[in-house]
Amino acid sequence: MKAEILATGDEIRSGALVDSNSAYIAEALEREGIEVTRHLCVGDDLKTLVAVFGEIAPRADVALVTGGLGPTEDDLTTEAVAQAAGLDLVLDKNALVTIEAFFKRLGRPMSRSNRKQARFPRGSAVLPNPIGTAPGFKTIINGCAFFCLPGVPREMRKMLADEVIPRLISLTGDNRQFSLVRTLSTFGSTESMIGERVSGITTDFPDISLGLRAKFPEIQVRLYIRGNDEDQLNHRLGIVAERVGAKLGNKVFSDDGRSMQAVVGDLLIKKDATVAIAESCTGGLIAHLLTNVPGSSNYFLFSGVTYANDAKIEVLDVPPETIETHGAVSLQTVRRMAAGARQIANATYSIATSGIAGPDGGTDEKPVGTVCIGLAGPEGVTSKRLYFPYGNRTAKKKLFAMAALDTLRRHLLGMEGLDIVMKKTIKE
Amino acid sequence: MKAEILATGDEIRSGALVDSNSAYIAEALEREGIEVTRHLCVGDDLKTLVAVFGEIAPRADVALVTGGLGPTEDDLTTEAVAQAAGLDLVLDKNALVTIEAFFKRLGRPMSRSNRKQARFPRGSAVLPNPIGTAPGFKTIINGCAFFCLPGVPREMRKMLADEVIPRLISLTGDNRQFSLVRTLSTFGSTESMIGERVSGITTDFPDISLGLRAKFPEIQVRLYIRGNDEDQLNHRLGIVAERVGAKLGNKVFSDDGRSMQAVVGDLLIKKDATVAIAESCTGGLIAHLLTNVPGSSNYFLFSGVTYANDAKIEVLDVPPETIETHGAVSLQTVRRMAAGARQIANATYSIATSGIAGPDGGTDEKPVGTVCIGLAGPEGVTSKRLYFPYGNRTAKKKLFAMAALDTLRRHLLGMEGLDIVMKKTIKE
Repeated sequence: MKAEILATGDEIRSGALVDSNSAYIAEALEREGIEVTRHLCVGDDLKTLVAVFGEIAPRADVALVTGGLGPTEDDLTTEAVAQAAGLDLVLDKNALVTIEAFFKRLGRPMSRSNRKQARFPRGSAVLPNPIGTAPGFKTIINGCAFFCLPGVPREMRKMLADEVIPRLISLTGDNRQFSLVRTLSTFGSTESMIGERVSGITTDFPDISLGLRAKFPEIQVRLYIRGNDEDQLNHRLGIVAERVGAKLGNKVFSDDGRSMQAVVGDLLIKKDATVAIAESCTGGLIAHLLTNVPGSSNYFLFSGVTYANDAKIEVLDVPPETIETHGAVSLQTVRRMAAGARQIANATYSIATSGIAGPDGGTDEKPVGTVCIGLAGPEGVTSKRLYFPYGNRTAKKKLFAMAALDTLRRHLLGMEGLDIVMKKTIKE
Repeated sequence: MKAEILATGDEIRSGALVDSNSAYIAEALEREGIEVTRHLCVGDDLKTLVAVFGEIAPRADVALVTGGLGPTEDDLTTEAVAQAAGLDLVLDKNALVTIEAFFKRLGRPMSRSNRKQARFPRGSAVLPNPIGTAPGFKTIINGCAFFCLPGVPREMRKMLADEVIPRLISLTGDNRQFSLVRTLSTFGSTESMIGERVSGITTDFPDISLGLRAKFPEIQVRLYIRGNDEDQLNHRLGIVAERVGAKLGNKVFSDDGRSMQAVVGDLLIKKDATVAIAESCTGGLIAHLLTNVPGSSNYFLFSGVTYANDAKIEVLDVPPETIETHGAVSLQTVRRMAAGARQIANATYSIATSGIAGPDGGTDEKPVGTVCIGLAGPEGVTSKRLYFPYGNRTAKKKLFAMAALDTLRRHLLGMEGLDIVMKKTIKE
């Protein structure tokens, strides 16, 4: 089965917006063994849309279209599909009721323009949108099934999973192919270093291909396999994943796509432990990442984002002499910050960051990109200094936060004892 | 002049990689007044590539192609262009010398496959690549100029700026066109509400088109104009932008693309004021957003991310009775949190959030999506309760953080006096 993906909208066409939907859809289809042959993008222009639908239909069995289902005048997908298929638009009463109910639930008046979203090419299957106002639909043009979905990624993803993929699976029937991917997420090495490490690892497994993907600040090692026996494919992926893990050691923080913060959270739950944070240069990002994980209130207690030195002193009980003598960005200060946060919040563990995210504030001794990380636990306090010379301010904040979380992860796994790290990195 | 953009490569086709090159190129071309009509993406397949080059040539004046210039067997762009143009491949001696010098400089042996990168369709203009091994080239197919560039974003961007754009400008000559965009960023209304408000606003300006863009949690109103007199275009955009601003009132927080946090930062600087934050449900996101702005250390002092009630009591001096009587998510508690953060940090202003981001923790009285926002300043303390019923946990955190920053923004602008808000929203 061949599929094409069409993103519509002037925002994407003109480059104002990067289209991430098409890659997401491609990956989902390929996972089901459906071959994606082309992506296209055109703007909000009726004539062009009609022409493109006409071009795709004879080439593909399935087309996934995103965008242009909104209530405004430049939302033209539905009209264009109708023209390309030679169908008129008819009001779908169920869809209208659903849209009305959506607005009622939100306690907001429904605007007249939203009625437009309940009209579809005659004979289309309406695809419900449980989290937005724009339903999708499926229409056949010249033997090709066009699935039209909203451009809002969250809505598109839900409808793709709930409405589109099940329909495609039932179409493929017994010939169902599986494309499986295994993702090993790493932190702390460059793409080329990892590439060299894992090179040749799939030699005995010619059916598995290996790709590297930079998902800043992670590098992911991805293993791909295709076939019709899902269990067998998973078994083979497992063997190679284990070999990759053995090569990369503690650089791998998850082999199932989980984020660093989710991994750290799971480790804390396993130990029945809690955590507090003291952040300077990361400016709240560590707390933000940790609290993105549902259920994080079970272990995350507190973060003191102490940007100003007075806040470090007042809130975290850092002695003013420590800052005066060693500076805010120092191993001594982050150790005090970590200890202070841990004590205030009565947490099992705490991590602290102080560094220079730039663009200003660097010195010869402590250039932009320098970060000190402190870690406090029942066994004591430790600290280390790292240097990330690449990226802008927000990139550096991400690297600093990730390095701090990774420090806690390794400690929770017993990979880095507090004392050992202390000896290696502290000179007091 | 019409342009199309083609991204090549199985990684992008299969969705393993999000294509950010095409948006970057589109924006650069549109800025020069070149209309981008289509993006395409196909994989590393010679037949498909040749076919697609043949399709693009009669439709466009210019085509920008990325990827497929590397040394390996699946790099097929050069071969495909030659076939589509009916030209043979010839070795370019200058290019070969440059590639050899590149490897010498890195101190690495040049592999035989790299020689391939010095062969181009006969008569092509070679486009030097100063930071990588793959030179690009320009070949005419059926009257359309194909510019082929490497897929590595850093190399592509440099060559686009140094080699492609100047050639395109000289092609357009005196007919140079400008495409200008003005962005008004809003918060607090839905896309359809804003669409209705601004509908018809460009009736007297048929040369200006208006588009809405949901950049969650903002809604942007974007005004587009194209022509050859840059000053005149800017003047006309200014008039319409002012009208849009008048229609949308204080919902507009910037008219130059600045983020909410940058706007709040600028207002604080203007008032020579500082800010502290007390965050519960936003979990550090407000601090993270504020500290993403370079120079934020001039006004941002502290955020207490007090997830646990004990941290609210211990760090922010919230009386335990307040939490016991009214709950952590209450107007009373956020007022105490705001006052506490302001006092600890000795800040001019402070904002506090406490709410339920979900997925768990909601009640009938305080469902998931409820947030209380407190604001403390020299004039006193106030609070309000809002309800955002849409989106998952991370979406709700974003909405809560944005609402809190917007509350501060409006207060700094004198749009919302503390007392007035207090009367409207507090019942104590």
